[in-house]
Amino acid sequence: MLILGLDPSLSCTGWGIIRAEGSRISHVANGQVKTDPKAPIAARLDHLHSAVAAVIAAHAPDRAAAEEVFANKNAQSTLKLAQARGAVLAACGQANLLVNEHAARLVKKAVVGTGGADKTQVQAMLRVLLPGARVEGADAADALAVAIADANLG
Amino acid sequence: MLILGLDPSLSCTGWGIIRAEGSRISHVANGQVKTDPKAPIAARLDHLHSAVAAVIAAHAPDRAAAEEVFANKNAQSTLKLAQARGAVLAACGQANLLVNEHAARLVKKAVVGTGGADKTQVQAMLRVLLPGARVEGADAADALAVAIADANLG
Repeated sequence: MLILGLDPSLSCTGWGIIRAEGSRISHVANGQVKTDPKAPIAARLDHLHSAVAAVIAAHAPDRAAAEEVFANKNAQSTLKLAQARGAVLAACGQANLLVNEHAARLVKKAVVGTGGADKTQVQAMLRVLLPGARVEGADAADALAVAIADANLG
Repeated sequence: MLILGLDPSLSCTGWGIIRAEGSRISHVANGQVKTDPKAPIAARLDHLHSAVAAVIAAHAPDRAAAEEVFANKNAQSTLKLAQARGAVLAACGQANLLVNEHAARLVKKAVVGTGGADKTQVQAMLRVLLPGARVEGADAADALAVAIADANLG
């Protein structure tokens, strides 16, 4: 069972794929898709859509997972994030991939053991859970974390 | 010059294409893309993306336009709307289509003459500005309105 974790954002979308066999998990691949902040928004959204579609075509994951989206205090950031998420999830839909959504707290709890864990703790646990994986950056780490949580939470 | 107006929403995305020649405008086509509320969100977003990509492929518009997105009081509605918009704009980006964004007030002002016009007034003016056009519904009407505004506002 291959699980694709996604951490969508307009400037940099993280993705990570793990293999889950019973309670064993292992790293398959991860990466980040950056978009040009000077490009028109439609071009940036297409870049995210195309890149995620290419990742799905290359690895053929069985299912996908992302953190639940939430509206934060900055309405403009929320709108950017949600539009990026729409483009990324559309690429999953194109490949008939189901996307499980998990609350951020449950992702941290599944990876670190506590819902209040910070990014550093999540990244330290990734090194333990996926030994040897070279993680491209913080967004790829978040994507791997949501994939691990999905392996546990189903 | 063919202009594609878009009124994205997750349940029903409206689209409308007009031809603008100098100050003359005429109706080309319009329609609505409905998604199944019982389908997974990724499938619904892909449906919007694919349908808008098909409209663009069929009509080859020169540019596109949509109302500026805004965060309304219902955070959950805003997130749904913005995700739908992300899928729809990604389809525009895939076709290298620029999407002009116009404030809702300016769209109403361009079509009716006043920024405070209601939906009924907008639809009545559409019958005047695009005589003979059969408009598929309220969302297609809003999409034609934003295309007309774009013809005026550039």
